[in-house]
Amino acid sequence: MKFLAVTDAQRIVLETAQRLGSERVRLEQSIGRVLAADIVANRDLPPYAVSAMDGFALRSADVVQIPATLEIIEDIKAGDLPQHTLQAGQCARIMTGAPLPAGADAVLRMEDTKELSAVSVEIRESVKAGHDVRPRGENMTVGQVVLTTGTEITPGVIGILATVKAAEVEVFCRPRVAILSTGNELEGMDEPVDVNRIPESNSYALMGQMQMLGLAPALLGIARDDEVETERCLTRGLAYDVLLVSGGSSVGVHDLVRPALEKLGVEMKFWRVAMKPGHPLAFGAKGRTLVFGLPGNPVSSMVCVEEFVVPALRQMMGNRQLFRRTVSARLGRAIKHKPGRTEFVRVQLQREGADCVVNDTGNQSSGVLLSMAQAEGLLVVPAESAGLAAGGAVSVQLLDGSMFQNEAGLGE
Amino acid sequence: MKFLAVTDAQRIVLETAQRLGSERVRLEQSIGRVLAADIVANRDLPPYAVSAMDGFALRSADVVQIPATLEIIEDIKAGDLPQHTLQAGQCARIMTGAPLPAGADAVLRMEDTKELSAVSVEIRESVKAGHDVRPRGENMTVGQVVLTTGTEITPGVIGILATVKAAEVEVFCRPRVAILSTGNELEGMDEPVDVNRIPESNSYALMGQMQMLGLAPALLGIARDDEVETERCLTRGLAYDVLLVSGGSSVGVHDLVRPALEKLGVEMKFWRVAMKPGHPLAFGAKGRTLVFGLPGNPVSSMVCVEEFVVPALRQMMGNRQLFRRTVSARLGRAIKHKPGRTEFVRVQLQREGADCVVNDTGNQSSGVLLSMAQAEGLLVVPAESAGLAAGGAVSVQLLDGSMFQNEAGLGE
Repeated sequence: MKFLAVTDAQRIVLETAQRLGSERVRLEQSIGRVLAADIVANRDLPPYAVSAMDGFALRSADVVQIPATLEIIEDIKAGDLPQHTLQAGQCARIMTGAPLPAGADAVLRMEDTKELSAVSVEIRESVKAGHDVRPRGENMTVGQVVLTTGTEITPGVIGILATVKAAEVEVFCRPRVAILSTGNELEGMDEPVDVNRIPESNSYALMGQMQMLGLAPALLGIARDDEVETERCLTRGLAYDVLLVSGGSSVGVHDLVRPALEKLGVEMKFWRVAMKPGHPLAFGAKGRTLVFGLPGNPVSSMVCVEEFVVPALRQMMGNRQLFRRTVSARLGRAIKHKPGRTEFVRVQLQREGADCVVNDTGNQSSGVLLSMAQAEGLLVVPAESAGLAAGGAVSVQLLDGSMFQNEAGLGE
Repeated sequence: MKFLAVTDAQRIVLETAQRLGSERVRLEQSIGRVLAADIVANRDLPPYAVSAMDGFALRSADVVQIPATLEIIEDIKAGDLPQHTLQAGQCARIMTGAPLPAGADAVLRMEDTKELSAVSVEIRESVKAGHDVRPRGENMTVGQVVLTTGTEITPGVIGILATVKAAEVEVFCRPRVAILSTGNELEGMDEPVDVNRIPESNSYALMGQMQMLGLAPALLGIARDDEVETERCLTRGLAYDVLLVSGGSSVGVHDLVRPALEKLGVEMKFWRVAMKPGHPLAFGAKGRTLVFGLPGNPVSSMVCVEEFVVPALRQMMGNRQLFRRTVSARLGRAIKHKPGRTEFVRVQLQREGADCVVNDTGNQSSGVLLSMAQAEGLLVVPAESAGLAAGGAVSVQLLDGSMFQNEAGLGE
């Protein structure tokens, strides 16, 4: 089998991954989930024209000439209903969010006025009709679809859901994910240190990637290089929606995973992708269960998860945005590249004025997990590239933990 | 009191917020937390030189002339210890991660060889010493500080922690946060719909913002506009590390929150910031408890949380990166601005080839929560700006839910 291009491999994965069913969750448990039904406004909001400021509700016609002195006939605060209709020369003291009295068509904020007495105020600015007034229904009108199926529930979305009093919401289910490591060389977390072995870290790094998506994966432990044990562990894993197996899927004669998967009825779709790190990536499916055979080394396996597993999981969860956010940046140090495979270079980002400058994290050996821990993003070097020159414009996928930076970025 | 600049207000908040103590958590529960101690490698990794590929371990001196035929004297897989020393003309079949046999100084991947028989292979590429070999200690050496205090625990960091077998880790505590809404106009989630009232949504939007930081805030409900009730609710809130109060903190005569906080011993540091939306933002402290008096309208209150509360909370949790990631983008539609206040415009991002184009989400009235739900970022318009021209370079803070996009962004 020849090496598949990354985009072709992604396409095959996304053609195979199917959206899961839905369930109801309490609003308090809904953050990060994806709406499985449209949300409709149950009333007009605001329910009447309200003031956008603390100030005075007035008739704009009365303040064409300034300064003007108006009579204060009422105090209106949020939650009150106004008692009077404004006549010429009259105004009402009004608080943010309070309903406008009949007759008023504008609000002037307190800072632009001077109270002369409890019943008299000097107006120092002219305002047009509608100034600092929020019209009825500005936020939403009854029957309006305010959120659509497929919307990810962010804090702002939770605010909308609370506004329409959705104490519970229908969301897509989350995939159940199992993680299995393979290899005789691996030393489990609970085993004593043996300097001739390699501590098993893949399961935990993959667990972290799943947790960042809001998932709670099952860690199935380490399968030793033995056909019976491998088959037994894989059988357990195939009971989940998604099975991630690290190690044992490449073309080596000792690799047990791929033949065992085929024996267990998994239809393998591909097992070589033209990427670096990560090329011995295998992918298959049995019924609705997806199986990813990830490379044994931690960096490769994490990169494969970012590029293939995360989009698949997000599609299963009903998300519309499947791929990592890419940002534009300027390349610091040049990057060498031999055409052939798409390369994912672990990079850090640094602000330099308005510019974002990107540099690799040093040693790009796929054995050096530290470079993944330090990475804020993955710089994508296209397969056909003959290398990237210093100073050029590049595109960087942001990784988990890169949502915050040291500088306030206010440009002040 | 005059209006404080946003950066000055941020500085005051960050001078006041103190880092919390630390606690031990299990590795499985550690994602997103911040290390409260340095992490030291407990051994060399890899513990010996290992192969980076499935292929043949050989002596580079033997393959200066190609093709060359070598004798296969051994099969070495990960977890094995090699039994023989390579002599001139000999090689060993080796798997990724397996230890190099004595005598070998390079690995050639399987794809560049042709096996002639079980004991004989044709080598078709010359390689230099060290080729596709990972030297001992490449990943880490015993005693090396691999992670420092203040490191946020991302999936890559979890991988490192698993590598040094940290089944438990020391992390900074998370602040206990209370959220209180105020106002007679508000209708609680459990109350029946009354078209003359406004459904309370701030508590939930703020809850979502806290949950995105991994916090589980306490919702204290709605305090009505009554001195006794306000004081009672605020007293409850002051038992937490951080109290967020929305509404009732501006200069209006009906505002009860600020006087009540002062009466309860909270030292108010500021209560007006030159920003839009959000200027009636109050901040104070009592002992180690921080109190934020947020504007009553949902958009303003969420923006204030982004700019002031989130950095404070992250500092309390020991994070080094306090501020939202900013990305460079090109402005689509021009933005008007009157100099005076820093403005935070809700925007959406769109890829156009290598470019990222940014446009406002429409109605920027701070009453329109939908614009916050749709926003992927906040475009910062500096206070002194006289407006931003279409096509110019701008800086955008990424908001929750913006970590993923529709396009793969591979440039292929």
